[in-house]
This record gives sequence, C-alpha cells and structure tokens, in this order.
Amino acid sequence: MKIVLSQLNYTIGDLKGNVSQMVEHVHRAKQDGADLIVFCELSICGYIPKDMLNYESFITRCYEALDDLKSHANDIAIVVGMPTRSGLVKGKSLYNSAVVLADGEVLQEVHKTLLPTYDVFDEYRYFEPNTNFKLVEYKGVKIAITICEDLWNLNEPYLYATTPMDELIGLQPDIMINISGSPYSYNHVEERKNRMVANAKQYNLPLVYVNQIGAHTDILFDGGSMFINQTGEIAEELHYFQEDYRCVEWSKDEIYPDNSHDYKDEDIELIHDALVMGIRDYFGKMGFKKALLGSSGGIDSAVIHALAAEALGPENVLAVLLPSKYSSTGSVVDAEALAQNLNSPYKVISIEEMVNVVENTLSPHFEGYDVDVTEENIQARSRGLLLMALSNKYGSMVLNTSNKSETAVGYATLYGDMCGGLSAIGDLYKMQVYEMARYINRDKEIIPNEIINKAPSAELRHDQKDSDSLPPYPVLDKILMLYIEKQKGWTEIVDLGYDEELVRKVIKLVDRNEYKRFQAAPILRISNLAFGIGRQMPLVGKFYN
Amino acid sequence: MKIVLSQLNYTIGDLKGNVSQMVEHVHRAKQDGADLIVFCELSICGYIPKDMLNYESFITRCYEALDDLKSHANDIAIVVGMPTRSGLVKGKSLYNSAVVLADGEVLQEVHKTLLPTYDVFDEYRYFEPNTNFKLVEYKGVKIAITICEDLWNLNEPYLYATTPMDELIGLQPDIMINISGSPYSYNHVEERKNRMVANAKQYNLPLVYVNQIGAHTDILFDGGSMFINQTGEIAEELHYFQEDYRCVEWSKDEIYPDNSHDYKDEDIELIHDALVMGIRDYFGKMGFKKALLGSSGGIDSAVIHALAAEALGPENVLAVLLPSKYSSTGSVVDAEALAQNLNSPYKVISIEEMVNVVENTLSPHFEGYDVDVTEENIQARSRGLLLMALSNKYGSMVLNTSNKSETAVGYATLYGDMCGGLSAIGDLYKMQVYEMARYINRDKEIIPNEIINKAPSAELRHDQKDSDSLPPYPVLDKILMLYIEKQKGWTEIVDLGYDEELVRKVIKLVDRNEYKRFQAAPILRISNLAFGIGRQMPLVGKFYN
Repeated sequence: MKIVLSQLNYTIGDLKGNVSQMVEHVHRAKQDGADLIVFCELSICGYIPKDMLNYESFITRCYEALDDLKSHANDIAIVVGMPTRSGLVKGKSLYNSAVVLADGEVLQEVHKTLLPTYDVFDEYRYFEPNTNFKLVEYKGVKIAITICEDLWNLNEPYLYATTPMDELIGLQPDIMINISGSPYSYNHVEERKNRMVANAKQYNLPLVYVNQIGAHTDILFDGGSMFINQTGEIAEELHYFQEDYRCVEWSKDEIYPDNSHDYKDEDIELIHDALVMGIRDYFGKMGFKKALLGSSGGIDSAVIHALAAEALGPENVLAVLLPSKYSSTGSVVDAEALAQNLNSPYKVISIEEMVNVVENTLSPHFEGYDVDVTEENIQARSRGLLLMALSNKYGSMVLNTSNKSETAVGYATLYGDMCGGLSAIGDLYKMQVYEMARYINRDKEIIPNEIINKAPSAELRHDQKDSDSLPPYPVLDKILMLYIEKQKGWTEIVDLGYDEELVRKVIKLVDRNEYKRFQAAPILRISNLAFGIGRQMPLVGKFYN
Repeated sequence: MKIVLSQLNYTIGDLKGNVSQMVEHVHRAKQDGADLIVFCELSICGYIPKDMLNYESFITRCYEALDDLKSHANDIAIVVGMPTRSGLVKGKSLYNSAVVLADGEVLQEVHKTLLPTYDVFDEYRYFEPNTNFKLVEYKGVKIAITICEDLWNLNEPYLYATTPMDELIGLQPDIMINISGSPYSYNHVEERKNRMVANAKQYNLPLVYVNQIGAHTDILFDGGSMFINQTGEIAEELHYFQEDYRCVEWSKDEIYPDNSHDYKDEDIELIHDALVMGIRDYFGKMGFKKALLGSSGGIDSAVIHALAAEALGPENVLAVLLPSKYSSTGSVVDAEALAQNLNSPYKVISIEEMVNVVENTLSPHFEGYDVDVTEENIQARSRGLLLMALSNKYGSMVLNTSNKSETAVGYATLYGDMCGGLSAIGDLYKMQVYEMARYINRDKEIIPNEIINKAPSAELRHDQKDSDSLPPYPVLDKILMLYIEKQKGWTEIVDLGYDEELVRKVIKLVDRNEYKRFQAAPILRISNLAFGIGRQMPLVGKFYN
C-alpha cells in the first residue's frame, strides 16, 4: 500500500483555498500511484476556527467543501479532517472527525475521543467526545484512525479515563493513522516523537502521523510529520516549518526499512525558524507586506528587526528611531548600524518637542504633584502614538518589542511600548533574547556587538538601568520560569533556595500586571506556557493569602 | 429542618476573606437555630480562579481554608463549594465539588457532573466530571446535591448525554440542593427561574438554590437565590446584586407555603444595577477609589459618567473634556452641564497644540501622502495619552467609553478612545445606550436632553456624523444582534429581509476588527454573548468564502 503524507499550511475559514491546495496533492499522489493520501486534523477549515464552529452556516460550508473534495476521491482514498454534525439529541452538536473518502463517497467517519481542553486548547467547548470504536477497512487493510490527542494518553500524565488505542487494538488493526494539529514549542518536538514512537512499540503497529505547518497568529504549527515502523523506528520525517509531501510504501508482511535521521538541532535554531514563520504567516494571512518598529538600540528591538527582515525582506521593515533627551548617543548610532547591516530603511524622529508640549499642556493639572512614572509613560506613549500614525499612513503593521520577562513583571507601558499588532518575542525571556541575538550573528555580526554588550535600559530617565528596578535577568528569568511554566507557588520557589523577599516581589509584580497583559498584542508561542490564551488568570483576585 | 441560604460576594483567591465572611453567616444561622447552611459553588476560592487551579499550592490553601471552616461546623451542617483533588490515575486531578461539613468533619463530597465549557465557561479545562451518583443523608433527610449546570440538562438544548437528577431520583431523595455560580445576563434571570421551577416540578421535590453576587471583572453575578417548593412555586427569592441571607423552614411532610413574588422589572433596570455593581466591585477589588473619563458631550460618555458616579460617588469621577478644533460648542457645554448635574469635578484641556506638534513632527514623513484616517487617529490617541497621564498622576482608573455597536464594527481607535481599564457599556448596543440614558433620567434630567437628542458624531473632522460611515444604528444593531448573539451567517440574515450589500459590509467590518477587540479593555457582560472570553474568534482567518 502506498500512502502519501501531505503536510500543508491551511488558512482558517478559507475553505476553498484549503481544498484547492489539497486537490493539488491528491493529483500528485495519483501520479505517484498512491492508494491513500492523508491530510491533517481539521484540514478542511484550518485548526481551530474557534467560535466560527458555533455558526450553523459555517458547518454547512464545510460539508460543501467536502463535496468538492469527494469528486477527486476516485482511484485513491482520502483521509481529511473536518467538524461533522453529531446528530445527537443529548450532547454537543459536533464531532472533530477524520472523514475517509473513497470512490467519490464518504466511506467512513471517525471521531476524536480525547478533546484537549487546557493550555491553548479548548476543544470541549465545541465537540462531543467519541465513545464508539471501530476500524476503517480499505483495500483489505484494517486501519486504526485516531486524531491527535487520542494517541497522547499512553503514558503519564494520563489526562483522560480512556485510551482510544486500547479500545481499537482488540479489533486487530494492521496500521495506525493519526491526523494531527500539534503546535510547536521548544520542548514539544522531542516529546511528540517519543510519544508517537511509544505508540508504535506499545501496539506493535506502524504509524502514519500527519501534522500541519503555518501560524494562526500565536499558535505555530511546525510539521514534522512521520512514518514510524512497527518497531518504533522513525522511517520518514517531514520538514519543520515548511510544507512537505512524502509517499511511503508499506506492506502488511514487511517491516519498512529504517532510514531515519535524528533531528538534533539546538532549540534556538527551531525557535528562530518558528518566529520567522510566525511573522511571515501572520503578515501574509492578514494581508500586510510591510512592518515598522521602534528601534531603540537595545537588544529586544534589534532581535525583532533581524527576525522581521528575514521573514518579510529587509526592505519591508522600517526602523524608526525615536530618541529623547534621555537617549544615549550609542542608542541612535547602534540602531543605525543595525539598519545598515540589515539593509533596512530607517528614520530618526525626535520625540522631544512632542513630550514638551504634552508636559506643558498638563503642567497646570500636575501642580503640587511630584515627578513620577507618569513622565516616563508620557515618553513611551508619545513613541507609541508616532509609530501608530506612521503605520496608519504607510499601511504597515507595528511590531511590538516586549520580551517575556518584562511582559511578566509589567515593565512596559500600556499603549506605549506595549503597542503593536504582533509580539514576536513575547514568549522569550530576556536571556533567551540574548541567545537569539548570538544565533542571528552566528555567521557574521548582524546585530552590532555594542547592542549585545550594553546594560539593558529603558532610557526613560537619566542613567536609568533595568537593574535599578528589577533583579538581574539571570535570576529574574529563573524565578519567572518556576512561577509561570512550572506553576510553583512562592513557598515552593523559596524552598529551592531563592530569596523570599525577592520571590514575593516578583510574584506580586506578575500578578498585579495581569490587567496589562489582558490588553497586550498576540504573542507568538514557542514555550509550553506562553502569555495569552494559554495562561488564563483572573484580573480581579488575590492569588491566595 | 431549618435551612439557611447564604448569598455572598466572594473575592477570587482571597481564601481567608471568603471563609471569614462565611463564618459570620454560620454564627448567625446557629443563632437562628438552623440545621444546615448552604453556600454557593466554589465559595471557598471564588468562581472561577481559572489557571490558579493549576497551582498545586493553591489547592493546598483551599484545603487549609476548609479546615478553618470545619472548626465551625458543630451544631450545624455546612455545604460549601471548592475544588477537591480527584486522586485519579487516569483523568484530571480536580473535581468541582460541594463539600458537606458536619460535627467538625467532612461528612461527604459531591462532585459536579456537567462541566460547562462554552461562552464564558471553561470548566473542563480544570475538572474531571463526576460519574458516581449518591445522596447525602443528614438528620434523617436524604438530600440530592447538585452543582449549577447539573440541573440545566432537563430541557432542550440537551448539551450533555447525562442528566444527573435522572440518576439521583432513583435513590429517593427528600429535597434537592443546588449550589451555583450563575452569572447575570438580561435574558438569563427568567430562564434560570424557569429551569429551576421545572426541576422542582419534574422530580416533585423542593429545591434550595444558592447563587452568589459580585463582579469578577467582566462576569457579573446577580444572586437571586431561591427556595422553590415541590409544586414548583418560588416560595423565597433573595435579592439581586446584593448580599442576602434567608432562613427557610421545611419539613418532609408539608409543602412550604407559597409566598412568592414575581420579579417583573424591565430589563434595563437590572442592567443598570448590574453595571453599577460591576464598576463598584471592579474598582473595590482592584484597590481603586477614583475614576476619570474623556467626556465628549456624547451619549456614551454621558451614560458612563452617570453610572460611575452612582457606583463610586460623583466626587470620585473626574470628567476630562478634550476639545479639538472639530468639537462643536455644544460638546463642551453639554459635558459641563452633565458634570454639574452630577456634582462631579471636571477639567477642560484642549488637544489642539498637541495635535499640531504631532502633525508638524510627522509632516516631513507624510509628504506625498493624502490626509486620511491617520489624522483622525492622532486626535483620538492624543486624548488617550492625556487621559492615561492624568490617571497615572492621580492614581485613578480610566473608564473606557466604547459601546458594543462601535466595538463590533471597529469604529474606534486602538490606544485612543479604546484605552481604559474597564469597559462599562461595551456590551450595550448603541440603542440600548439611549435606553439607559432615558432610565437614568427617569426621575429628573441628569443627562441633558441635548446629549440624548443630538446626532452621534466622533467629531474627528468637520461636520462628521457616525451615519457618514455606518448605517443608522437601529438597523446596524439588529444586524449585529443577528450576527453576534444569534450566530447567523450572512445568507441567513439576508433571508430575513436585510439588504445584502449592507449585511456583507457589516459582517466584514466585524470580522476584520477582531484584532482591535483582542487588545480591548475587559467588558462588563450583560448579554448572553459579550465580546471578550465569551466570543473567541481567530484573528487570522477568513470566515468562509
């Protein structure tokens, strides 16, 4: 049996576009003499259309798109992902399904059993879980089809009472197919491979695993589809962050030869590729070609500038230098050098006159009050206003320049440096931003070393350094990682040897700045716990007392 | 048996504070000779602590708080809501439970079966559903305890395969208790009463129904706890939007006398009370006393000013008038008259000089470009910057002034008039804002009639009217209601008799402005489908084609 693994980039809701690119792969598969082609989870509509699924008319359109695809299902069977109507009187009205097409008709529907509802996933919001287990038989081969999460309840932590393959194995399948919508995070690639290999070994069956690529704003799909033979060897592994097509041949009687290659690049390389794809895909799907950003001569804006230049072309990224009286000379010089290294256009616009007028306008109303953070925020918001005006006028999108460390502790000004349509490094702690800068400079000095070596500063008052108000980043990042990713309480973190006063201060900063993150730009997700939909905290509330 | 219904306002995560107010009601219940006191769903920790539930240490604190409460459970039994550890090897680690305390110990735990995961609810993100049905026996009375949603699968739409009371009724209970966290929406109060009455009738049992009050940012709990007798008459109904305590007496042998009063106020009155509570509670729980808002002389800011004055005291609400060269004289005069009617302080700060400097600063960079929406946004963002600066300096919170109609179609400037810490009328369509103004003026003219009668305008260019770019609000609001609340696609709306071109234009505006709403302030929810967590749409994506 020849099986094609089709790894594509889908657009949510673009049913015609999605089907049309699937049809291209179907034609190619027919030319290759394939018996079966497999697309990923919810491939008809893109993963996941969220509340579009509540629209009856949207589901109707999905069925119409399936009809289009059916007409190509001759001389080949097609496995495609889509929401299907459950028809239940009691229970939710939809299933998350794999639909098998053959001879121009629906041969069978298989529904997802385990509905991830945690982190960035909310499938139980929409779908009824499957409770009825059966195989699909095609050309004499008995196939156990599952959908993504269905194969993840094999080892601890067991998040569900049921393990679907334990139900299916009794029906004696010959092969497993899993259609997936599995997003990237830097510690997810290895885990995914381990889990899928464990399934092949546990059930002594080969596994066809098909994922997707592309960015749906914050969620980055990395691909990495696989064919794993029944001894658990990865016989074929498709590309990461690129569309791909692979035809594998398999017979009931032989074990597919092992020609696996281990994927062993360091995390930072894949994170880099993930962010470049994330920026490129968000701009593409939103219909934007050009970006601009406030370039301060600091490490954050430098890294974003370099990533955006790679994603969009350097000529499409405008660096706007917005010095004030507190900016060091180095700031402007370093940002200029960066733009020149990248071959990007840049502008220098002083904010001084604007800040003066704002302060004059407000001075009668500030009488009797001390100078405080207000004046710093006025500078940040003046910059935000100018960047937004330029983006309106030029039809480009502002790239937000916040990193995860400052987003966590609220070291940013709402509507000021928090402005922008997309946060490209909002899931990178400050120390990871430095790592990324070094990776960008791996072949030559793109980001000037002066930028990498200077002490971080917001430059909103004289001689300001981040370290005036924040602990050193290596310490801060570790505490944040424990509190955010590892979900440790303050006593647990103190028990690990961190200073109690410091831990309490950091956690308090994270908690009290929830309201700022509520209004933050969407963040490209590269960790297993990013700010945004993956971390949902009350705005009002005390985190125990 | 004497049963106390305790209807309180809880703070999420404030375990000590929550228990301490429960203990007060326990003491009072003992003085009243009560056998049993009932608190609402998740009363120990507040509904719903969201991802705080993922912190092991948070759950430990909940158990410690339960220990505190236990020590008061002598001479009285207590029903309290809290997350409990499931101890399951396969499945989620928590249940959403009712814990029954008696004689200083845990008598029994009852777990929630139906976990709402739609609209603003995401309980399956955290909890394992119950599958084991049993009664609680206390003082010879067999009690069927359920938790909120558990009683909602009695009529269509049946969202779940199981109906918990169908399982419990076979065990022959004497009475039902439902502990609830049921939020307000203007069409929810009647529905809730109907559903609970239907349960009493269906199972021929009395029902003790205990809800909570208070605002958790966007979610507004309205109270309205009830004692319903077994014929389905509402014998006791507690207050709306106020804490309350009621001791009811019931015996197995008699039907409680019916002294029900129908709750029949018009929607707008309860919406008004909901918004006033929502503003007051958000400020209180966030630790703010003072608000300020941009007061334009238009209907939206006028209504918010009046609501905030009632919630916080008029002296704590500062109206900031920010006229430009496009502002009509009426704008300033009307906003001043409003502030005087309300006895609120106000300031007039012209934005002209600031706008001029911004335009001069940018003019070399705008050469060759036409005047467009950029210049309008500069005005809106200049106002936003000044409001935020004043709020920083005065330690007050900016109230956002957007309504649901303009939020829907994106008729608002990100970081401009979209700024603010709380959106008080973001769930009111424009026509509902007018209704609210008339309700506020029910006894005397608080909002000047000039404000109510003038044509809506953003006043960002000469002689601008909302109707230049938007359809008339009575039509727009109806299309929006069909698209947003009723989840109709464009063909279905056109079939109802609306102009196709208009419908397509409106829907396109709603879809393409998802990115703006992503960064909007939290919105007080008073409808059954508010923007925010209750409506989750992809930013990137085409809503079918």
